[in-house]
Amino acid sequence: MPLPMPEALAAAGSPGLGRRFTVSASATDSPVTPNAEFDAWFARKRRANRFNVARIPFSDLAGWRFREGDGNLVHDSGKFFSVTGLEVNTDWQDRGSWMQPILDQPEIGILGIVVKEFDGVLHCLMQAKMEPGNPETVQLSPTVQATRSNYTGVHGGRRTTYIEYFTSSERTLLVDSLQSEQGAWFLQKRNRNMIVEVTDDVPPHDNFRWLTIGQIHRVLAQDNVVNMDTRTILSCVPFEAPNGPVRNAASPEYRESLVRSLSGRHGSLHTAGHLLAWLTDVKARHSFTRRTLPLSKIDGWSHSDDEIAHDEGKHFKVIAADVRADTREVAQWTQPLIAPVERGVAAFLARPINGVLHLLVHAKAEAGAFDMCELAPTVQCLPVNFRDLPVHRQPRYLDLVLDPAPGTLRFDAVLSEEGGRFHHADNHYRIIDVGEDVPAQDDEDYHWMTVHQLMSLVQHSRYLNVQARSLLASLHTTW
Amino acid sequence: MPLPMPEALAAAGSPGLGRRFTVSASATDSPVTPNAEFDAWFARKRRANRFNVARIPFSDLAGWRFREGDGNLVHDSGKFFSVTGLEVNTDWQDRGSWMQPILDQPEIGILGIVVKEFDGVLHCLMQAKMEPGNPETVQLSPTVQATRSNYTGVHGGRRTTYIEYFTSSERTLLVDSLQSEQGAWFLQKRNRNMIVEVTDDVPPHDNFRWLTIGQIHRVLAQDNVVNMDTRTILSCVPFEAPNGPVRNAASPEYRESLVRSLSGRHGSLHTAGHLLAWLTDVKARHSFTRRTLPLSKIDGWSHSDDEIAHDEGKHFKVIAADVRADTREVAQWTQPLIAPVERGVAAFLARPINGVLHLLVHAKAEAGAFDMCELAPTVQCLPVNFRDLPVHRQPRYLDLVLDPAPGTLRFDAVLSEEGGRFHHADNHYRIIDVGEDVPAQDDEDYHWMTVHQLMSLVQHSRYLNVQARSLLASLHTTW
Repeated sequence: MPLPMPEALAAAGSPGLGRRFTVSASATDSPVTPNAEFDAWFARKRRANRFNVARIPFSDLAGWRFREGDGNLVHDSGKFFSVTGLEVNTDWQDRGSWMQPILDQPEIGILGIVVKEFDGVLHCLMQAKMEPGNPETVQLSPTVQATRSNYTGVHGGRRTTYIEYFTSSERTLLVDSLQSEQGAWFLQKRNRNMIVEVTDDVPPHDNFRWLTIGQIHRVLAQDNVVNMDTRTILSCVPFEAPNGPVRNAASPEYRESLVRSLSGRHGSLHTAGHLLAWLTDVKARHSFTRRTLPLSKIDGWSHSDDEIAHDEGKHFKVIAADVRADTREVAQWTQPLIAPVERGVAAFLARPINGVLHLLVHAKAEAGAFDMCELAPTVQCLPVNFRDLPVHRQPRYLDLVLDPAPGTLRFDAVLSEEGGRFHHADNHYRIIDVGEDVPAQDDEDYHWMTVHQLMSLVQHSRYLNVQARSLLASLHTTW
Repeated sequence: MPLPMPEALAAAGSPGLGRRFTVSASATDSPVTPNAEFDAWFARKRRANRFNVARIPFSDLAGWRFREGDGNLVHDSGKFFSVTGLEVNTDWQDRGSWMQPILDQPEIGILGIVVKEFDGVLHCLMQAKMEPGNPETVQLSPTVQATRSNYTGVHGGRRTTYIEYFTSSERTLLVDSLQSEQGAWFLQKRNRNMIVEVTDDVPPHDNFRWLTIGQIHRVLAQDNVVNMDTRTILSCVPFEAPNGPVRNAASPEYRESLVRSLSGRHGSLHTAGHLLAWLTDVKARHSFTRRTLPLSKIDGWSHSDDEIAHDEGKHFKVIAADVRADTREVAQWTQPLIAPVERGVAAFLARPINGVLHLLVHAKAEAGAFDMCELAPTVQCLPVNFRDLPVHRQPRYLDLVLDPAPGTLRFDAVLSEEGGRFHHADNHYRIIDVGEDVPAQDDEDYHWMTVHQLMSLVQHSRYLNVQARSLLASLHTTW
C-alpha cells in the first residue's frame, strides 16, 4: 500500500503547513461576531477589567528577592523569570562593551490561536486579556498564552483555558515555530507560535470571540488594541495576495507592488541564497561575545530602593509593581517589570524595485539575541539613546522615520510589547513607502528584501526579530 | 535603468548560490592532477610529514594552565580555546543531569575551498595538511582552515596561505554558511563554511593540488584520508544527480532511488513545513537547560596529573600532548586535546519510500549544541557509553548499525574528527540500505527525510550536526 506522500512543497513557493491563507477584503466583517458586536464587547471588557499598577519599593515585592551572593532578582520558587546581569563586547556599530540587566526565562511557552471555519471563512478565537504592563489593560490576545509551567501543570494552579487544543496529539497544525522575543531585554528567550485548526464545536467563554483575520487586521491598525503575542503568531502566516477588491485603493501602485512582493513568482533584488550568505557574512564580520554576570556587578546602572536605572537615563528601568484588579475579580500580586524610558520607534522603509515591493531590513545586534543578531526593521530604537551622539553614530534613517514625508505612511500605529513583562513599552510601528527617495542600494548591515522572502525566512526560527515580525503582520493591513 | 534582478530561486528547488553542481562520474580523474600523480604526492606527503604526539603531564604544558579560581584550562594569551565545566539538565532520553568538561572557542573560523574550472570541469584546491590528532598525521584538507585570529592577523604570526581569496570583497561565493561542530565536545562552536570560485591563475604551492569533486569522492570512501573540514564544506554543496554512467552500478534500484531523492521533484514522506514543525515540537516537548561552571567543580570526572577522565571510563578524556614534527620542518608545541575513549559509530539507515531514498534522521540532544538539539545520523554514539545499560536505554538501531546485514552497506569508512582539537577521534561512518527491513515509520525523535530535504536544510545554520553533514557528503560517493 503506498504511503501518504504529499508532494513536497517548495519551501519558498509555499511556506508553511499547506493551508492557503488569503488576505481577503470580504472577511473584514463576520456574521459570527459582527464588528459592531465586537466593538461593544471589547469596550465593555476594557471598562470592566482594569489593573491598578502602582510602583513599589523592591522590598515590598512578595516572593521576589535580590539573591544573596549574586544580587540577581529572583522568585522564591525559582520559577517565572529572573533578572541577571549581562556583559557584551562587540565591534558592532562602535558600541564597544557594556553591561546591562536582562531577563532570563529559559522556558519555551506557547502562544497559540485556535482557528475554525464558519461558512467557509476562517475565524480566530481571540481573547480579551488583561496584562499589567499594557497601556490599556485589556488587549486582543491569542487564544492561549501559556508558560511551560502553565501547560505542563507543574505548579498545580489553574489550567490555561483552551490549552488542550495545543497539547493534543490530534491537533491539526497550521503554524508551529519557535520565535524569539525582545533581544534588548530578554536573554535568548523564545516562544512557540502555533495556529491549530479545529472542526468540532468549541465551548464558548465570555472572554473569547471568533474573529476573521480581516477583522483582526481592522483593529491591528488601531493604537494598542492587538497585543504582541497575536502579532507574532500572525506574522508566521504565509499570506497570499487577495483576489478581490481591497479596502485601501488609495495607492493602486503600492497595492500592485505588494501583490507582486507576496507571490514569490516575481523578481527580487537578491536570491534567497544570497540573503543567507549575506547574513553569514554579517555574523562572521563582527565580533560579539557576552557573558552573564551577577546583577550586583553591572557598571553604568544605579540601583535605588525602587528602580535599577541607567546612569545616563537611557534604555530602560527595572521597576517593582503592585498589581490589583479594580473589579469584582479578586486578584493582587507584585512583580518586577521592565519599563523603557520612552516610546520607541520600529519602522520599515519600503519601496518598489522593478515593480516589486521591497523592505529595507537591518541585521541588528541585540544583547540577548539567540545568535548575536536577527533581521530587524530598518530603524528600531529609543531615540533618547542617541540624542547626544554625533549623526554618524545615530541609526541610519532615524530622522526619516520620526518625521516621514506626507502621504508616505502605509502603516502607523502605536503598539505595545508583552504586557506581562514590560511596562508601557510601546513603539511607533511604521511602514513608510519611500519610493524613489531612497536608492535601492544595500549597505553592509542593510539589505532590501521582498515580503515573500521575509515570509519564507520566518518559517524558520531566529531570522526575524519580534519587532520585524510585528511589522510583517501589520503589513497585511495596508491593502 | 533596471536593476540586476535574478529571478528568486525557490529555496527548496535550487538551494545555494546559483551554480549547478553535478555529481559526475566522468570527473573521477583529471588531467590537472591525475589520480596516479595525486596518490604518489599524497603518499609522499604522508611519509615526509609526521607528528610525534606524546602524552605529557598537564604541568608540562607551555603557555597553558589551570586558571586560579575556576580551574579552567586556559592559554596565557586568552586566545585559542579553553576547557570549562558544563552542567546539563534534561528529560531527553532519560539522561537527567550531568556535568562534563567542554571546549569553549567562541570565535568563528573559516573553512574554505577555492575552486576553479579547468577545461570546463570544476576543481578544488586541496591541501595535504598535518594535524596532531589525526590517526595519520596528514589528511586531505580544504584550501584554508583559519581561526578568526589567523585571518584578521590579530596575533601577527604567519598569514594563512590563500586566505585572501576568502576575505576579498571581490570573491565569488558558491557556498557560505555557518555550521556547527561537535556538540558533545564544543560549547556552541561554529565555523564559516565557504567555497569561492576563481578564474585567474592561482600561484601553486607544494602542499596543495587541484582535484575534481569526483576525485575527492574517490578518496572520501577510503579510511582516514579526507578530513572533517573538507567533509563539512562539501556537505553544503547542493548536488544534482548525475546524467551519465555511474561508478557503482551494483544496485540500480538504490541508484534510481538516490537520483529521485536528490531532485526535490519527487515525493517525500513529509513536506518541508511538517519537518520544521516536528523540530519545533521536539524542542518544546523536552526540557533542556545548561550552565557553564568552573572546571574544578564538575562531578563524575577525575583529574589526575595527565588526564581528566570520566569516572566510569565513558565518553572522553582531556589530555595534554607534546607535538613534534619529525622532519626538517622545525615545529614543536604543547596543547590540550580531547581523546574519546574508543572508536564511535555514526550511521544513517536509508531506504526507498515509494521509490525515493529517505534517511532516518535523529533529533539528538547534545550538551554543547547551539539550541539543545540538531539533526543527527540515525545512530551516533560511542558504544561503550551504553554497554551496561538495559536495551531500552540504548540508542535505537545500535545493533543493526554495528553489525549490518550483508550487502546493505552503501558507505563504510573510518573517518576522524578535527585533528587540531581531537586525538584519534574516529568513527565508523556508515550508510546502510535497510530496504523493507525497517518500516517507513517515524518516531517521536526520528523522522525519514529525503536527501533533497537535508540539502535544503543545510543551507541554513544549525539544522544538521557535523556527523550528519559528514554522512551527507559521503552519500555522494555511493553512486
